[in-house]
Amino acid sequence: MAVYTDVSDDALASFIARYDLGAVLSFKGIAEGVENSNFLLVTEAGPHILTLYEKRVDPNDLPFFIGLMEHLAGRGITCPLPVRDRSGAALGTLAGRPAAIVTFLEGMSVRRPRVLHCAAVGEALAHMHAAAEGFAITRRNALTVDSWRPLFARSAGRADTVLSGLRREIETELGALEAQWPAALPAGVIHADLFPDNVFFLGDALSGLIDFYFACNDFLAYDLAVSINAWCFEPDGALNVTKAKAMIAGYGRIRPLGAEEIAALPLLCRGAALRFLLTRLYDWLNVPPGALVRPKDPLEYLRKLRFHQRAGSAAAYGAEA
Amino acid sequence: MAVYTDVSDDALASFIARYDLGAVLSFKGIAEGVENSNFLLVTEAGPHILTLYEKRVDPNDLPFFIGLMEHLAGRGITCPLPVRDRSGAALGTLAGRPAAIVTFLEGMSVRRPRVLHCAAVGEALAHMHAAAEGFAITRRNALTVDSWRPLFARSAGRADTVLSGLRREIETELGALEAQWPAALPAGVIHADLFPDNVFFLGDALSGLIDFYFACNDFLAYDLAVSINAWCFEPDGALNVTKAKAMIAGYGRIRPLGAEEIAALPLLCRGAALRFLLTRLYDWLNVPPGALVRPKDPLEYLRKLRFHQRAGSAAAYGAEA
Repeated sequence: MAVYTDVSDDALASFIARYDLGAVLSFKGIAEGVENSNFLLVTEAGPHILTLYEKRVDPNDLPFFIGLMEHLAGRGITCPLPVRDRSGAALGTLAGRPAAIVTFLEGMSVRRPRVLHCAAVGEALAHMHAAAEGFAITRRNALTVDSWRPLFARSAGRADTVLSGLRREIETELGALEAQWPAALPAGVIHADLFPDNVFFLGDALSGLIDFYFACNDFLAYDLAVSINAWCFEPDGALNVTKAKAMIAGYGRIRPLGAEEIAALPLLCRGAALRFLLTRLYDWLNVPPGALVRPKDPLEYLRKLRFHQRAGSAAAYGAEA
Repeated sequence: MAVYTDVSDDALASFIARYDLGAVLSFKGIAEGVENSNFLLVTEAGPHILTLYEKRVDPNDLPFFIGLMEHLAGRGITCPLPVRDRSGAALGTLAGRPAAIVTFLEGMSVRRPRVLHCAAVGEALAHMHAAAEGFAITRRNALTVDSWRPLFARSAGRADTVLSGLRREIETELGALEAQWPAALPAGVIHADLFPDNVFFLGDALSGLIDFYFACNDFLAYDLAVSINAWCFEPDGALNVTKAKAMIAGYGRIRPLGAEEIAALPLLCRGAALRFLLTRLYDWLNVPPGALVRPKDPLEYLRKLRFHQRAGSAAAYGAEA
């Protein structure tokens, strides 16, 4: 959850006046997204979401994110569609921050994903990858293999305060991943953060994808690895192979995976687990004073990483070569 | 802001199934209220607010709060109307907590109240007092003069860590208020917490009152004193007499104040200031681990208290005897 910034009445009124949305009927901070401040904005034109981009988002990346949502929505992906003001701008400034209004998506995120959700997420991810083809802007992945070591350097000195031996274990894994990371796999625009919070369902049907603020260009199968980590483990830390198999098969129905992608899956899953272990570890060790957000447990991703290290082959995930 | 409790999909679905609201289309935690968890619940029947009553609310008080909202809404006060399930119950259980669904009110709380807002709040408060007449349930004010000393006893030992001399200053004020507090004034159901967060406006028109979870039976003019404290001081700590005068006059247009109520106003304002000073001091000194809420500055209310001590008569608030 995150509502970081208070918006004054006057500032909101003059911001909204630039849009063809009519008068504001309601404005409430909502517990959605962790990097930005999000508000339910009801106007005479209906409900929308207003997002203030807080300091963890680089303003230079916003044209990529906004443009990507427009591109995907125009190609049939149900995702928030940025609303343009009368001058044609989808990005403005409110309360000193970059701000955008997007359409309101119906649906709810699933707290306890079942197999059918994992299958639907696999399909939606592949649809998104296909729909993103032809998007003109690119954004490098700021959180991929070459950035993990400098990221870890900011936490390494205190890593063992979280778990004895953690520093050494991460350093060993960093060395292994840097040595073995694939040089080339099919690439394109990935979501890179498709956790259950970011997928909406209506009943059992997937109704939309949100929060494209980690989207970037990288290996498509790495996106699947992120989602396997996020959706297919049980609360006790074990992989649910039925869920992973359903997600991989769902993905493959829309965009068949190549043999080299399937073979790389355990390694990509290790990388994805390490990426979230590292950012969570940093956040765990650097809770800002006055933070309104509880840091997430980094060790959840250490347990996932260890599973992937032992996996051996994609068969451990139910993937069919 | 407050969203304390996570609600599982299954629990939500079975809770909603008891109501004639159709399928759930959206469910988002919102930053509203500080004692409870509040969610925007959009169903096929439209938007509603779902509230989970957290542990600071006594479940025995809920029939009073729920009944009061129904009573007021039935008498023309725009406030949340509890929705009854098919069995006729307005209170259920969700995620282990008492829970209620109420109607969604349009409007926004004002961050920087102007004179016209203060006048409208005075009128709405008097309308509420009049509409509450005949409400059958009573609830004693758990935060009035006889409870302030035991409340302060829980903070007194550490009061001087917040401000040197604070303990002695509060003890002196407690003695004065206990000695001088009015024995009898016109009484009825009061809101007791009508801060700007709890009043909605659409444009310049007041559109609704929310958050009746401190409502109780007490002197009606004490409610006005709470609202003067909450609405009529400037950020620099000074009373804006124009605002206070407008609020008092607005109240008097709907329910004329008696001479004894006007004469008691400075003392009632002192009491209201002390009440919020004491609860804020306690919260300041007892931030729970993992709290997602920033405690509010208790000393804001010490400055207000000192103003009221010097006020002398109701003329200092622009009240006409």
